[in-house]
Amino acid sequence: MEEAVFNDYPPQLSPEQQDYLVTATKDWAIQNGLAVRPSPAILPANADPNRVLATNAPVTLFPSPFPRACFEEAQALQTVYNQLYAAITCNEEWLGSIIKDLIDVDDFVANLWKTHLAVKQEGYVQNLSLGLYRSDYMAHVTPNRAPSLKQVEFNTISSSFGGLSALVRSLHAELLATPLSYPPHPLLKSGTPPDNTTVETLSGGLAEAHKAYGPSKSLPDLPLCVLFIVQDGERNVFDQLALSKRLTGFHKIPVFRVKSNQILDQTSVPTANPARPLIYHPPHSPESAFEVTTVYLRAYYSPDEYTSSRDWEARRHLERSAAVKCPSVLNQLAGCKKIQQVLAEPAGPDHLTSFLNGVDPAIIARLRETFAPQYDLSAGGQGRDLALNPETAMKHVLKPQREGGGNNIYKAEIPDFLRAMPESDWKGWVLMELINPAANAENVALRNDGEVLRGNVISELGVYGTVLWENTGKIIHNDQGGWLLRTKGKEVNEGGVAAGFSSLDSVLLY
Amino acid sequence: MEEAVFNDYPPQLSPEQQDYLVTATKDWAIQNGLAVRPSPAILPANADPNRVLATNAPVTLFPSPFPRACFEEAQALQTVYNQLYAAITCNEEWLGSIIKDLIDVDDFVANLWKTHLAVKQEGYVQNLSLGLYRSDYMAHVTPNRAPSLKQVEFNTISSSFGGLSALVRSLHAELLATPLSYPPHPLLKSGTPPDNTTVETLSGGLAEAHKAYGPSKSLPDLPLCVLFIVQDGERNVFDQLALSKRLTGFHKIPVFRVKSNQILDQTSVPTANPARPLIYHPPHSPESAFEVTTVYLRAYYSPDEYTSSRDWEARRHLERSAAVKCPSVLNQLAGCKKIQQVLAEPAGPDHLTSFLNGVDPAIIARLRETFAPQYDLSAGGQGRDLALNPETAMKHVLKPQREGGGNNIYKAEIPDFLRAMPESDWKGWVLMELINPAANAENVALRNDGEVLRGNVISELGVYGTVLWENTGKIIHNDQGGWLLRTKGKEVNEGGVAAGFSSLDSVLLY
Repeated sequence: MEEAVFNDYPPQLSPEQQDYLVTATKDWAIQNGLAVRPSPAILPANADPNRVLATNAPVTLFPSPFPRACFEEAQALQTVYNQLYAAITCNEEWLGSIIKDLIDVDDFVANLWKTHLAVKQEGYVQNLSLGLYRSDYMAHVTPNRAPSLKQVEFNTISSSFGGLSALVRSLHAELLATPLSYPPHPLLKSGTPPDNTTVETLSGGLAEAHKAYGPSKSLPDLPLCVLFIVQDGERNVFDQLALSKRLTGFHKIPVFRVKSNQILDQTSVPTANPARPLIYHPPHSPESAFEVTTVYLRAYYSPDEYTSSRDWEARRHLERSAAVKCPSVLNQLAGCKKIQQVLAEPAGPDHLTSFLNGVDPAIIARLRETFAPQYDLSAGGQGRDLALNPETAMKHVLKPQREGGGNNIYKAEIPDFLRAMPESDWKGWVLMELINPAANAENVALRNDGEVLRGNVISELGVYGTVLWENTGKIIHNDQGGWLLRTKGKEVNEGGVAAGFSSLDSVLLY
Repeated sequence: MEEAVFNDYPPQLSPEQQDYLVTATKDWAIQNGLAVRPSPAILPANADPNRVLATNAPVTLFPSPFPRACFEEAQALQTVYNQLYAAITCNEEWLGSIIKDLIDVDDFVANLWKTHLAVKQEGYVQNLSLGLYRSDYMAHVTPNRAPSLKQVEFNTISSSFGGLSALVRSLHAELLATPLSYPPHPLLKSGTPPDNTTVETLSGGLAEAHKAYGPSKSLPDLPLCVLFIVQDGERNVFDQLALSKRLTGFHKIPVFRVKSNQILDQTSVPTANPARPLIYHPPHSPESAFEVTTVYLRAYYSPDEYTSSRDWEARRHLERSAAVKCPSVLNQLAGCKKIQQVLAEPAGPDHLTSFLNGVDPAIIARLRETFAPQYDLSAGGQGRDLALNPETAMKHVLKPQREGGGNNIYKAEIPDFLRAMPESDWKGWVLMELINPAANAENVALRNDGEVLRGNVISELGVYGTVLWENTGKIIHNDQGGWLLRTKGKEVNEGGVAAGFSSLDSVLLY
């Protein structure tokens, strides 16, 4: 599973070359907003009481080679994936039939479902939904065949690093264009990373939802805005600000940021107005009020963010409002790993074809090709055998219903992990065959504490898309554009870039 | 000396308003490169061993009102000032006659002059000189008259903050354009800070010099580049990078940075080539070599940067090379305060008219109007009386031959300071009448450690210009464009923004 392209890539760096590249990279990062706030691990909070300091996002010093055919296939399929997840979200019955298996083993899924049911009972007042998605892939290497595109996961909430991904592409493109930045190497002379329009695509989706919301539902009319719901203490703020900058600067749409723990203080849904507009009351201008057309969640994707019933109340409050949610609770649930596993089932009903009604079967077949084999752990099923057998476990990863990495169980750890858990909980997990990335890929990472690490790496390609639809299934806007490469040291199994053990990267297509 | 425009400006901020503005400002600063590396005072070096952290440049939260007539007059006069300082630099005899008085009291001036003489003896090989200038002013307030423009100093070396000044203008313009950023106030509704083209102007000047240098003087030809000479440990690096980004991105000119203590290691002048090209040997690519068309000094402006004879050797090495210097030693010397004082002398020869041969006398009169009264301290002269009399000293500032603030003596401290010095050294100093800025100006500053300070302030307007000329006096390129407002707390007498006790600001014209 070696790929020849990596044999002498990236070129070795002399200490002076490395010093030059590191200085150029860390300065470029701050000059251009390719930045994060430092974590307590690299800077104690009391060293920066006013939280003014920033550092470079973790990045690779070189772009990584990536197979052009896989890159182009991922782009070609994104609007079909957008359509698929919109259709799944519209089919509450089908979605519910899968979710119901998870409810008694997964509190988080259960609470999301309950939130949906509560709003359903009251009646939804907004029939539009917005998705900003990122579909993650690896280039899967098999002997004597061209690499193929395999999906790692599909993100339906808070798809992050769109803002920074375009910047890391610009960083590498600029280094490639600067004489002597890199030691001579044929691959580094061969071209430049392709354009990266993530910021335009994602903010374009938010702008479409804003427009589709229509006029104010308040009496008298209120000015309209988009609301970013963010985590308290967010360190990846510059990634988010790249999107809001485009929304305000290009689309001329006011954007405000509300921390998830302040939603109930700073927003309201007037009881007297059956249209249930979501009103934002800026604490910095208490006499003003805005009506929120679109709620963009960069928070509330993970169970640990719901620290009390107040958080669930806030989530329900947003859900029942007239604002377009990005995503709705149902759309977030559609991102459960279980859904991806059911879609990938080779036997049984052809879900893909029913959801992608009208799509060319050849395209559906190509989309199906991106699925890695994945299994539930039901008694007597193939998945259970593969997971418990130490030999076959080595080729698999065990995933809960979460996004964002940090929760997966890998290889040899799978059998013991399962046996330590009541069998009744196993249905909360999905077993997926590991994708085989090129074994000899290397790169050099500049961490956000300035340490430089060289070694074997695994890269994951994310492709961004956005879709706006009506609950009837009618699609209003469906667009793809932009990409992200995340590259991590091979000894590290997880891909959470923000945690610092993974780097933002870009691609050189071959 | 109150100005009505400041009576209720800036508006008061509630804690929530201030929190909003501070968060928006510090995030904007990092997103857009309005940044500095933190000083040891706010972050001990061992907390950031790899020097990756950055913070916002110190900025005001509000733009400051500034009289439109003064602003426009400063812009209108800049190319005349450019011409004046080019002409002074071309007149070595006149310059030398003034410098000779300083030589025995000012080692720094003496060493610069010696450097010039040494190169003169060998013979200069470059007849082009480049100036990137900043002329600093205050709006001088006198009762019952419109404010008038008075020059604080004219900078002929390392004129800094050009890169960041355009950014702080954009910051304030964006805050003004964002609903609810500021509490309502008529002045904040009245407009936006004028365009700021400092980056284009200064990098345009460097590009002109690069072009005028002509083809490589090496055999065989070498590729050409611009060299930035910078201080080791420079914290204001993003200001400089704004210029090099424009040079590489727009003008397509390679730029390299060399620390002043590495000039002799990384550059050479081949002894066998009588044209004396300056060759740059990139340590990160030892087999490569570039020929330097233009040396831009962002170092070597202050005596404390010359720590040994090696620094003077490096300075002479640059000066004797064929690279266009920005500035040459003579041009740096033309920036001595003593020159400004001699130009301002109301009696005696009309230096302005002789240097500005061919310029409309009305323009020369307007330029003269920008001079504050200033005096030498010669025996029996008016300056000595004004400086030693405690009452008149209160209206004056005493300046040595330095740029960059931090060396001036103010008001009541002047008499004792002079008396503690041998009278023979007094000729190294210039006494200048203090300019009267509006007494009631206020603003709110966000320091680079995140502390917020509100209070009475003094603002200084800097206007940028660039000029390229031949030693014969022929001017090749003369341009003005861009500006900077620096605003400092009134209790602080000095204007060194980088030291953190002064803020970058922009203007609202009235």
